[in-house]
Amino acid sequence: MKRIAIGLQYDGQAWQGYQKQVHGLTVQDKLEHALLEFTKAPLATTCAGRTDAGVHASEQVVHFDTDLDRVPYAWLRGINAFLPPSIAVRWVKELEGDPGVLDFFHARFSAQARTYHYVLYNNPTRSPLLVGRAGFYHRPLDVERMQAAVAPLLGWHDFSTFRAAQCQAKSPVKLMHDIQIRRHGELIVFTLKANAFLHHMVRNLVGSLVYIGQGREEVSWLGELLESKNRGLAAPTFMPDGLYLAKIDYDEKWALPQEATSALPWF
Amino acid sequence: MKRIAIGLQYDGQAWQGYQKQVHGLTVQDKLEHALLEFTKAPLATTCAGRTDAGVHASEQVVHFDTDLDRVPYAWLRGINAFLPPSIAVRWVKELEGDPGVLDFFHARFSAQARTYHYVLYNNPTRSPLLVGRAGFYHRPLDVERMQAAVAPLLGWHDFSTFRAAQCQAKSPVKLMHDIQIRRHGELIVFTLKANAFLHHMVRNLVGSLVYIGQGREEVSWLGELLESKNRGLAAPTFMPDGLYLAKIDYDEKWALPQEATSALPWF
Repeated sequence: MKRIAIGLQYDGQAWQGYQKQVHGLTVQDKLEHALLEFTKAPLATTCAGRTDAGVHASEQVVHFDTDLDRVPYAWLRGINAFLPPSIAVRWVKELEGDPGVLDFFHARFSAQARTYHYVLYNNPTRSPLLVGRAGFYHRPLDVERMQAAVAPLLGWHDFSTFRAAQCQAKSPVKLMHDIQIRRHGELIVFTLKANAFLHHMVRNLVGSLVYIGQGREEVSWLGELLESKNRGLAAPTFMPDGLYLAKIDYDEKWALPQEATSALPWF
Repeated sequence: MKRIAIGLQYDGQAWQGYQKQVHGLTVQDKLEHALLEFTKAPLATTCAGRTDAGVHASEQVVHFDTDLDRVPYAWLRGINAFLPPSIAVRWVKELEGDPGVLDFFHARFSAQARTYHYVLYNNPTRSPLLVGRAGFYHRPLDVERMQAAVAPLLGWHDFSTFRAAQCQAKSPVKLMHDIQIRRHGELIVFTLKANAFLHHMVRNLVGSLVYIGQGREEVSWLGELLESKNRGLAAPTFMPDGLYLAKIDYDEKWALPQEATSALPWF
């Protein structure tokens, strides 16, 4: 038995999220179907972080165990041949060692941090070239105000304010490593890195940051929201369209061939 | 009677090209349907340059004549309310003067030059985040070789070599103002500006440039193809996915509020 890790990219618009469901219209369903077609054997897969309906991944990480002997390129070509255009394996790594031992590589449990991008199109008029691929906000937003507002979020905090009611995480306490908000012309890219994220956490944070960026709330408001632990005080959840799971950090000893840059030049 | 010019952006993936057809599945059909819904009167429209199935526009220019009195913002909001997400009016300009006189603004006949971008994703593995929105080529391409190859194309030439059999242009002789080929990471953007383009001309040129960029043909080959006026000698037409109608040049006297930059940061 060997463990195979893959880097998976997808456009989430057509899918009901990552996680397998009875209706079969999810990224995981399509991946496991492609694995079945290629290997002629059912293979269970584990991902680093589930994404919601309409959310994209420039690099999700997934693992599965198999007895089959294939070189990485054969896995990549073989799986991709059975995936739809909106999903693709970008790299494959066979992990050295015994999957049965404690502390062996695990896509979810070995992940040290996750990075998400939220792309927001900030223009009075919607853009057909960004529909489904960027959030949209029509009033001017002040990026410096938003960047100043995030300071209280860095470090270990209880993020209950920004947690969806249906969140299944054991604890609302997470370690926020970094939040960067950058403007690229009419696009604003929010980049958040944490040890882990609660359900809807990025979209809830972006919703409240947009209130600050447009001047409707003070810069200090985000820290006050965090302290309140009251979801009801924060802004509504922002649309999924602009959210991308971008990077999962693992110990270098696994030597995963993760991609340094995304195909999307705005990251 | 007044003449209204609009800037129209669309994602061409869902549409059977720009020009109106019996089946109604074109950008022009959807635009004229939206105009009918908004104005309650049928309005004929004229565009600067027709685009093929699957081809996008960051800024197409269209005009129509009407007796209705609306401010530009009312036109923009009104038409967009009846357009699908993949099509939007980006600006509206009511033109001063009498549409009945000679030399009045005409989206097609007043156009002095057209600029197209062709976006090519150059990576061994396809990217789901660029499907339908960029061409794809898996082998390494040398941008400097391709840039060197285009020199013989600049100026007035007979572009029959790069003309589709079904092209309806009166003459194959066009004035090529500029061709720029730039790499942005794994994206290569070809930008071509000419007084006008023949049917499939950009996609045919990109196809032959890719042969040069991969080293299959010499840098001098493009000039030889042009001289030959023989479509059969050139490379196949490249896929429509990466083609964007980006800019139509008009005399400054019309003061069109054209957009200086595209929402897509790779242009």
